[in-house]
Amino acid sequence: MLGHFLKPEYEELIAKKEWETLRVSLEELEPADIAEILADLPSEDSGVIFRILPRERAGIAFEYLPLDKQANLVKTLGGEQLVKVLNEMAPDDRTRLFEELPAEVTRQALSTLNPEELKVARKLLGYAEGTAGRYMTTEYLSLLPTMTAAEGLDYVRKHGTGRETLNVLYLADEKGLLIADLKLSEIVMAPPNAKLGDLQQRQLVALQATASREEVVIAFEKYDRVALPVTDTRGMLVGIITVDDVLDVAEAAATEDIQRLGGMEALDAPYLEIGMWEMVKKRGGWLSVLLVGEMLTTTAMSYFEHEIERAVVLALFIPLIISSGGNSGSQATSLIIRALAVRELELKDWWKVASRELRSGLTLGMILGTIGFLRIFFWPTRETLYGEHYVLIAVTVACSLVGVVLFGALCGAMLPFALRRLNFDPATASAPFVATLVDVTGLVIYFTVASLILRGSLL
Amino acid sequence: MLGHFLKPEYEELIAKKEWETLRVSLEELEPADIAEILADLPSEDSGVIFRILPRERAGIAFEYLPLDKQANLVKTLGGEQLVKVLNEMAPDDRTRLFEELPAEVTRQALSTLNPEELKVARKLLGYAEGTAGRYMTTEYLSLLPTMTAAEGLDYVRKHGTGRETLNVLYLADEKGLLIADLKLSEIVMAPPNAKLGDLQQRQLVALQATASREEVVIAFEKYDRVALPVTDTRGMLVGIITVDDVLDVAEAAATEDIQRLGGMEALDAPYLEIGMWEMVKKRGGWLSVLLVGEMLTTTAMSYFEHEIERAVVLALFIPLIISSGGNSGSQATSLIIRALAVRELELKDWWKVASRELRSGLTLGMILGTIGFLRIFFWPTRETLYGEHYVLIAVTVACSLVGVVLFGALCGAMLPFALRRLNFDPATASAPFVATLVDVTGLVIYFTVASLILRGSLL
Repeated sequence: MLGHFLKPEYEELIAKKEWETLRVSLEELEPADIAEILADLPSEDSGVIFRILPRERAGIAFEYLPLDKQANLVKTLGGEQLVKVLNEMAPDDRTRLFEELPAEVTRQALSTLNPEELKVARKLLGYAEGTAGRYMTTEYLSLLPTMTAAEGLDYVRKHGTGRETLNVLYLADEKGLLIADLKLSEIVMAPPNAKLGDLQQRQLVALQATASREEVVIAFEKYDRVALPVTDTRGMLVGIITVDDVLDVAEAAATEDIQRLGGMEALDAPYLEIGMWEMVKKRGGWLSVLLVGEMLTTTAMSYFEHEIERAVVLALFIPLIISSGGNSGSQATSLIIRALAVRELELKDWWKVASRELRSGLTLGMILGTIGFLRIFFWPTRETLYGEHYVLIAVTVACSLVGVVLFGALCGAMLPFALRRLNFDPATASAPFVATLVDVTGLVIYFTVASLILRGSLL
Repeated sequence: MLGHFLKPEYEELIAKKEWETLRVSLEELEPADIAEILADLPSEDSGVIFRILPRERAGIAFEYLPLDKQANLVKTLGGEQLVKVLNEMAPDDRTRLFEELPAEVTRQALSTLNPEELKVARKLLGYAEGTAGRYMTTEYLSLLPTMTAAEGLDYVRKHGTGRETLNVLYLADEKGLLIADLKLSEIVMAPPNAKLGDLQQRQLVALQATASREEVVIAFEKYDRVALPVTDTRGMLVGIITVDDVLDVAEAAATEDIQRLGGMEALDAPYLEIGMWEMVKKRGGWLSVLLVGEMLTTTAMSYFEHEIERAVVLALFIPLIISSGGNSGSQATSLIIRALAVRELELKDWWKVASRELRSGLTLGMILGTIGFLRIFFWPTRETLYGEHYVLIAVTVACSLVGVVLFGALCGAMLPFALRRLNFDPATASAPFVATLVDVTGLVIYFTVASLILRGSLL
């Protein structure tokens, strides 16, 4: 459905310097598809294509490129193409690009913008990273509530060219105070002489420029709008956020959460494009921290060395028991982190969650304990493998499973709440982090249960 | 910014039967906010509110409710309110509701629709779950390419009421063959006597009704549209998908992936609303499977029982080693599953990924191995804790860590590809699943390394 292109053909056309054929073939393409070709071409070849493309189409195609590719191009494009491209970009996309660039390159690139656009970029750059101010564009159209529908349409016809969206228009007074938003279709369908200020039908929903990324996504999900206005603390209209950017933001947020849940820092770039050392750094940090945490298991086990010496059979079940606790914790933490991220749960719900996890953790523990018991009790070679006290061992394993699965569920569910309470991101409570916590406790539970049940027989 | 309401007040108004006060206070609210109140009220109270709300607002508020709450209400609402609500729902939202209901309730609910709407619902229900056909709405406006811009606007004024979106309009010939889509703003800004068929500026992007959920999300991300048309195999326009639904779909898909990555079945409902047994079922299934898988570690370890008996010190490092492999695998599998889901990676990239993971897994393994070595080598009580051969033990642990971290990274990265290749969902390769796989192999690696290095000394 999205068309297919033969990328080698473009490389060939460039190599043979067949500029005219190249231009004609590019003319037939959608900018998004040109961007797809550009993403695969080496930077020099992309430069050639930017020289050939008309100014406006070059800008749009550039916007469709992934951020890291844009950053690379900014460094390699000549002055002329750079100006062409940067000046045509939507302000919000340009801001995101600048965030990605090293400060030196940013300074150089900003200097290529014309004065008016520079002002826009600076304004957008004044808001903290990850806030509504960073995702907004200033390319909206604002109307006065005293205009009639016919005057409004005339105004749109005169000033609408080049705005990021005309689907929604904004009513603001002379000072810029946001009063309402109107769909273009509402103006079209209104009687020509109706005052725009009287048309308002839906409650005004506006985002503060300081609203977080999650608040932005949630407002769009809740109100089903294609664009939402952004105001400063005084209610003055400063920009709008369009839903296409929100979709990108939501997907990026989910990617970050998944990567952190997997026990690493968020990559912030596509897998195949991140450098080898960057990747090792983002993964190695947490792996090392977890390893150091896991060393506590060695310390814990050295306390039980005597028990293991007397009953080596106990060692056989260590991986089984600690990993069951880890799995139970991994489930609970994934559930709760996502529910907190999409605001199904709030901080105040921790008690409800704790009491649910207590019940489901206990039930799950009993199911697993039963399976574990049966596995040992009915194993054909149970007496040679586990010795004459195999029934007691089966009971030990079963009780330990109940304990670790319950503890894993509680610990995995409560840790994200605790982190949120301490103003950390709940997603820091990755599955491996919870598993490590549960491993140490799991060993203590196992050997405590063992010493209670096996005292006088094996121990 | 999103307003705050005192829910107890509504319950009180209903208890006191103060219908007039209730109606006035509801009139001031946005339907999304009414839905928020409804979500918290018991079903009988919600029924009262639906009786009071005007027909159209009742329908909109109902649409904003979460699916499971809608399903509950369908069962408890009286015939009259049910008709009111179902007839006002957008077809795509109604379809999603019907999917959720037990067949018996669906049949009963469908019978309350008027004939025309029943036809629409049936048409939408004909497409497989999770395909574009299920997310589309038929409330679009289609124009003829022979109309002028002025005629087009007149047509919108006459027929636009109640359409889900008028931001984009569709040009189709008399037979319904989709020719182009036009933004309403393009028609507004065009010269009044220009033919609509001549206005077309951007390439037509259309989705097949059979396109998957992921294809829908990716097309919206790529083309930044507020709506995309859906066609059948012959290119006939059958519906449109609006971006607000895509945002919901993308978020739901991410939630499912996160839950499955955490080692459980997707919940398909908010955490606090799912029943206790449903929850135990969705989590217990995988936990049991993983437990059975983990029993292989017991079997594996029984082969090494003799080694453990001779050198109990080896047992101390078992949790450390297997969990490091699990953590490394968890990172890799989270990375690759997400990259496959957002199409950063495709099946054919498996070789590139394997060679990257080989290098980063080896590097990460060496970092962890070094930390492990130093921890044992410089531990103050090393000789009492680990015996006279503590250096050899340190070397054994270090080499094993290199092996398991590398194996974890490779295994975690390749498993999603293998599953995709076999036409399973890659997200089935949950972090706990990979960890279980790596646990067994980790033990084999550890004891093999130990028997090579410690032969003649400890073993």
